[in-house]
Amino acid sequence: MYDVHKIREDFPVLKKVIYLDSAATSQKPVQIVRAMDEYFLEYCGPYGRGAHRLSRETTGKYEDAREAVASFLGVPPRNTIFTRNTTESINMVAYGMPWKKGDHVITSISEHHSNLLPWQRLGDRGVTMTAIDTDEKGVIAAGSIEAAITDKTKLIAVGHISNFFGAVQDVPAIVRIAKKHGVKLLLDAAQSLGEMKYDFKASDIDFICAPGHKGLLGPQGTGILCVKNPEELTPVFVGGGTVNTVTIKSFSFDDIPSRFEYGTPNIPGVIGLGRAVKYVEELGVGNIEAHLKELSQYCAKRLSEIPGIEIYGPEDRGSLVSFNVKNLNSHDVAMILDETKRVCVRSGALCAQTALARLCITGAVRASFGCYNTKEEVDTLASSVEMIAKTLT
Amino acid sequence: MYDVHKIREDFPVLKKVIYLDSAATSQKPVQIVRAMDEYFLEYCGPYGRGAHRLSRETTGKYEDAREAVASFLGVPPRNTIFTRNTTESINMVAYGMPWKKGDHVITSISEHHSNLLPWQRLGDRGVTMTAIDTDEKGVIAAGSIEAAITDKTKLIAVGHISNFFGAVQDVPAIVRIAKKHGVKLLLDAAQSLGEMKYDFKASDIDFICAPGHKGLLGPQGTGILCVKNPEELTPVFVGGGTVNTVTIKSFSFDDIPSRFEYGTPNIPGVIGLGRAVKYVEELGVGNIEAHLKELSQYCAKRLSEIPGIEIYGPEDRGSLVSFNVKNLNSHDVAMILDETKRVCVRSGALCAQTALARLCITGAVRASFGCYNTKEEVDTLASSVEMIAKTLT
Repeated sequence: MYDVHKIREDFPVLKKVIYLDSAATSQKPVQIVRAMDEYFLEYCGPYGRGAHRLSRETTGKYEDAREAVASFLGVPPRNTIFTRNTTESINMVAYGMPWKKGDHVITSISEHHSNLLPWQRLGDRGVTMTAIDTDEKGVIAAGSIEAAITDKTKLIAVGHISNFFGAVQDVPAIVRIAKKHGVKLLLDAAQSLGEMKYDFKASDIDFICAPGHKGLLGPQGTGILCVKNPEELTPVFVGGGTVNTVTIKSFSFDDIPSRFEYGTPNIPGVIGLGRAVKYVEELGVGNIEAHLKELSQYCAKRLSEIPGIEIYGPEDRGSLVSFNVKNLNSHDVAMILDETKRVCVRSGALCAQTALARLCITGAVRASFGCYNTKEEVDTLASSVEMIAKTLT
Repeated sequence: MYDVHKIREDFPVLKKVIYLDSAATSQKPVQIVRAMDEYFLEYCGPYGRGAHRLSRETTGKYEDAREAVASFLGVPPRNTIFTRNTTESINMVAYGMPWKKGDHVITSISEHHSNLLPWQRLGDRGVTMTAIDTDEKGVIAAGSIEAAITDKTKLIAVGHISNFFGAVQDVPAIVRIAKKHGVKLLLDAAQSLGEMKYDFKASDIDFICAPGHKGLLGPQGTGILCVKNPEELTPVFVGGGTVNTVTIKSFSFDDIPSRFEYGTPNIPGVIGLGRAVKYVEELGVGNIEAHLKELSQYCAKRLSEIPGIEIYGPEDRGSLVSFNVKNLNSHDVAMILDETKRVCVRSGALCAQTALARLCITGAVRASFGCYNTKEEVDTLASSVEMIAKTLT
């Protein structure tokens, strides 16, 4: 049974605040803090280098984390690259693919900046981008992706769940379209991984880009890039740890995935992430998904009953609800929620300006949930928003 | 007074091993582990986003760390960018400078791969590279840099201390040459920062690239890039946190240094680094430098008295001694040191193949020191090496 009150005991910060900003970054269970402490206090050493015991133990634990993450995703460890965050994962694909002038990328207007700007910027290299429209709820019609495909299209890059609308895109349909037309697919799983069951193994997606520090509950400073054919991707940054033979005139790349993990990596972070993935697996992603669905739908329902509140996104949503209080600035609403009830929500453009522009707004309040939130916390949010709406508008 | 035995109490791993691999990554004092734990357990939130208290406290602590690092270096916080490691710092310069075809970079054969390959790879963009020779001790003659300068030379990129030879380069002389010829200078301070006093403020170097996890005693996954004129550098990776206004067709970069810190950063790592810098300042870099000099010179002396040992590098050296036992593979020596005496040293090509090639070797053993090592530990190393040399050669 999913016992949220028992789970909350693992997250000490929740005693201080009502934390509804997990879509930005999640709270961490004490178990991962202990795993990181253990590294620093018991066997701290370099990764992948040196014959000594600390180096061997460190490398072993780091590779255990890789196996844990790969197993969670259902992909081989070799195809699983650790990065700094989702933004780096996506940029590594944008820089590393063998583009030709005239190539074409399809994305959508509802993307996080991190899944829009790397493609936009490829214009410098003669690559064109189409950002397809969504409906007013942020849902991408798979057909509009298919309609945008040309014989120059090399990549479709979409987010699994919009970080503003909360819309869950029809990834299986998009996968079918990509495969049908022989176009590669990049999935930005920043708002879904660890929070929603998805069969990555069956989907066989070309690039999965995800954070370690959101739904997986890992530490900040960790990201994931799973690549189906890593041989086709050129590493962006080179140096220690990425190469085999080096002369003044040339070098050869190291094996995969080492060639993509330049310099000394975030060893404690990766070890913490490995532990975090096990924590999520123990709770069960299906259980977490059901819990989050209940919270976000309850939240949308409660807020929809308050006069003067506009709620964005579809009914079938991920673990977040974006909204505005009529005539109030989103930052002011967030400040008041924090000051009066210690409710922590995000406000502003949510790194998704083109998504907000779809609705002719420039800011929104976003309440987002983690496996540790309760309906009582949603009640506090809703009653506070109601008070603000009544008092200030 | 510099009390190494008292210092050692802060580094629990030292109870288990003789750790002589600090040039790869250093051990961490418990104080920085506590600072990171405090983040996770007391105020864990997102950086730079959102109006709520956890976001504000997190952002404040992160910026405190930036101020601590900037103050340590004597540069403005605005010019101080947090990266993943030195390799990323150097690559950000290699990708971000406004190169023109025919431009020229000067580096040396004694560099770490991370300060050689990014320049070599610029050949793809029509930029040429000269890797100047050193003497057989790894020392760069400043005159040979000056001799290599052409009217196309845009950058000189050198390491402060060679991670193989241990040679301390004459940076003030190189600074003078760079300024005289109007060529930018990049200093790879991977083996010097936190271990050697240097007046960065007076030197006014264009790019300082350094790790957080070596001499500064910060966590793995942290690096530093100080840029004199950050307006001239184009950010490599773009996305959340790096931009202001975004439309489907264009974007504008955020302020400096935000534009360079893409996505959610390694928040716990940076906070740990901020604490680590204070720890180093409390010990005093001058005191650490004197201690390390004593250790490395004592080590070189002890090893030089053993028949069959070849020692590399000059007498005036940084905190490391590279050597070989005649007729023995460096990895075998490292393994035996570990297995017989729990002595942890690095072995192999040390990510510096062109430096080793200068001496026609492909591997070496490297003993490197931290502020926490003792002469007794050097004695154990020396007597063990002597035993190996007597028994096995």
